[in-house]
Parts: sequence; structure tokens; C-alpha cells
Amino acid sequence: MTKPSDERQLAVGAIIFPGMDQFDFTGPFEVLSRIPNSTFHIAWKDKSPVRDIKGLVLTPDAAFSDVPALDVLLVPGGTGQVGLMEDETVLAFIRARAATARIVFSVCTGALTVGAAGLLQGVRCTTHWASFHVLEHFGAIPVNQRVVVDGKFVSAAGISSGIDGALRVAALLRGDRVAQDIQLYMQYAPEPPFNSGTPETAPPEVVASARAASQELAERRITIADRIAARWRHGGH
Amino acid sequence: MTKPSDERQLAVGAIIFPGMDQFDFTGPFEVLSRIPNSTFHIAWKDKSPVRDIKGLVLTPDAAFSDVPALDVLLVPGGTGQVGLMEDETVLAFIRARAATARIVFSVCTGALTVGAAGLLQGVRCTTHWASFHVLEHFGAIPVNQRVVVDGKFVSAAGISSGIDGALRVAALLRGDRVAQDIQLYMQYAPEPPFNSGTPETAPPEVVASARAASQELAERRITIADRIAARWRHGGH
Repeated sequence: MTKPSDERQLAVGAIIFPGMDQFDFTGPFEVLSRIPNSTFHIAWKDKSPVRDIKGLVLTPDAAFSDVPALDVLLVPGGTGQVGLMEDETVLAFIRARAATARIVFSVCTGALTVGAAGLLQGVRCTTHWASFHVLEHFGAIPVNQRVVVDGKFVSAAGISSGIDGALRVAALLRGDRVAQDIQLYMQYAPEPPFNSGTPETAPPEVVASARAASQELAERRITIADRIAARWRHGGH
Repeated sequence: MTKPSDERQLAVGAIIFPGMDQFDFTGPFEVLSRIPNSTFHIAWKDKSPVRDIKGLVLTPDAAFSDVPALDVLLVPGGTGQVGLMEDETVLAFIRARAATARIVFSVCTGALTVGAAGLLQGVRCTTHWASFHVLEHFGAIPVNQRVVVDGKFVSAAGISSGIDGALRVAALLRGDRVAQDIQLYMQYAPEPPFNSGTPETAPPEVVASARAASQELAERRITIADRIAARWRHGGH
């Protein structure tokens, strides 16, 4: 990893939204908010609080129009992400901030929102395992890794992988030492009590049940992705 | 781990407070809010939002007086925890809910708050590495493990260890399968990009710098712990 000498003030910004998975955001927030000489902007269309999938209330500190140019744009996912893929206000914000950002960092199905903004065509990336096959509908190149870095695009797989992705982002921006300092502060030396974190390692009955539970939503995502891709072919993007 | 047959509705409750570390709470929330047939109560003295160490706004959904009897009481930590150790409103809430809870689950320096409530005397437990030596000032038995289970008391070490602890709690309450389902949902197969998560593995200069940064706060915690213990000896508890 690089050891950049650039120590100017960094602006990090995240989108939050109704029906998000809070952990896609709070994991990376824990890491990125601790980068020295940086500010963190939590943004939504307006400053009204939003509720995550399980009801946790999160409160933006900025409306989209108040967010400055960003060095890092964090895009989390969650079931509510489906509603963002054809939301032009959200997509326009992502395109505008991504254009000048050094890093666009998606976590979980946040990658599908970035994909819907048209930014992942030909880009190597990942997302939550249950939506992995949706990526190619946006012209992206799915890579089955926990964290994928391709140019300015950093993508993390499902939910908790945002922690690993954020430590990579911190290192890319400010060098390994900054990421190591934050990792020790967080005492991030994980010891999962089970080996059930991926479809490859989880017990087959756990995987079967999770696939069944996520299938309908994954199909909705594909339907929307194909509709968006059809509009692109007709020049609507 | 057990496979309890008790599938009645579970009540899980967490304390949030100003100056907390949000991740001590949001990690376990991600896990525990997904236990089937359970409700999650987010509590503080009143329903006013609180800000975590780095400014994230979290909003309680219940005042202490509105919280029902709990099966699980989650007590997170963070620098603001120092102010709770002599806060009788908080300590009385913890004692009352702990008395009837099946599990009292501390994350990070939340253990010191539980200790200040007088509940950890003779109990094997852990906390954030930088406060580990404070535990014995409350009569607790420090155990250098990521998650420690001693009777009804489950303690997790620093910050991110709350995820591992919460998966253990889910398994204790509802069996391994429930925890495995949640782990797969979260895609929790961590791959930290550095080996800097504990003082034993982090580069020496990272440890030295972190110890220097945390020393003053650790000493304040010991001063307060000794004052509390002195009151106990004089029968004030």
C-alpha cells in the first residue's frame, strides 16, 4: 500500500437513507471518522432522520446541497437501496461527487446504487454475496473478493466487510500507519465464533435458507438493473 | 453451545449515552436486532439524541423508565463512559435490569460501568485493552480473551469485539443456527488488512503511541474506580 505524503484536510462523505443497513455505514464511519485531519459529512436529501432496516434512527448532518467536494464518497447498501437505483436526485449526487472524489467506496449493495449511476461499467468490483450476480447487469466485472480496488473505486462485499474496506481506504489515503493506529484503537482482531460468514463456508442448510429469503429481492434488483441498462442503450443516461 | 428450546419473545435493551463509542453499540445491534421473535429497546435517561465520540447522532427509542424487563442488557463503552461510573441514575437502571436479565453483555469499557454498579466482584471478564488493568479495581477477575462468559455476564474486549460477543449471545439465547444465519447475512468472514488489532500483534511504535494517547483517561478511570471501591468498603453501596 502507498504512503502518501499528502496530509491536507480530507473530506469524507456518506449517504444514509431509509431502509439502509446501518452497519454498512457505522463500520466504515468508525474507521474513516478517525483519519487525522479529516471531516466526515453524513448526507441525505434533507436533514430528516432515517430508519435503517431494523429501525435504528440515523440523522444526517447535511443535505446533499450542503456537502462540499469530497475526497471519499461512501455509499452503503441495504434493502432500501432498491429505491435509490432509479432516484435521479440520489444518482445525480453520486455522479457529481464521484467525478471529483479520489475514492468512491461502496459497501454491500451500495455497489448496485453506484452501478445504477452508470459508474461501474467495466469496473472490477464486489457486493453482498446474495446480489453478486446483479453486478454484471450494470456492466461491472464481479470479483469474488472481500474488498476490491479498481482505480478510484473501492468496493466491499456484504455488510461487515465495510470494516476491512474502510481500513484499506484509510491506508490508501494516509498510509498503513494511520490504518494500523485505528485498527488497534478498535481492537479489530476478529474471532468469529462460527465459520458461517460466506456461502462457501456456512452450513448448507444455512445457505439454502438465506438464498430463499433473499431471492425475491435479488430478482427485483435484476429487473430494475435491466430496465436501467435498457435506457442506457437508448441513450437516456 | 446450548440449543435452548425457549422460543418465547425476547427483550433486548441497550444503553446509549453522550460520548459513547457508537460501534460498541451498532455492532451488537446488527446481530441482536436480528434474533427472531425479539424486540430491541434503545434507552437513555430521556429520549433526547446523544452524540458519540466522533459526533454520530444516535436516538433512543425509550427512556429508562419505559424499558420493560430485559432478557439481555447491553452496556457499551467509550470515553463518555467515565461520566457514568458515578451516575446513580444509570447505575440504578443497570442494577435493576441486570437483576432479572438472563445476560448482561458489556462491550469495551462498558464493563467498567457494570463494574461501577458493583456487579462484577469476583466475576471473570474483559474490556478494551487500554483499560484492562482497571477491572481489578472493581474486584473483577480480568481475563485476556476477546469474549468472556461467566454466568450471566458476557463481556467483549475493545469496540469491534462486540460483534463476536453478540454472536455468542445470540447462540446462548437461541442456539448456534440462529447465530450462523445472522453471520451469513452480515457476510462476517473478516479479513483485516493489517495485523494491528491487539497490543500483542501491532507494531511496537503503534502500541506505544496508543498507550500514550490513552494513559490519562485510564488513570482517571482508576481514580474513579478506587473512589467507588472505598465507598463500598464504607458500606455506601
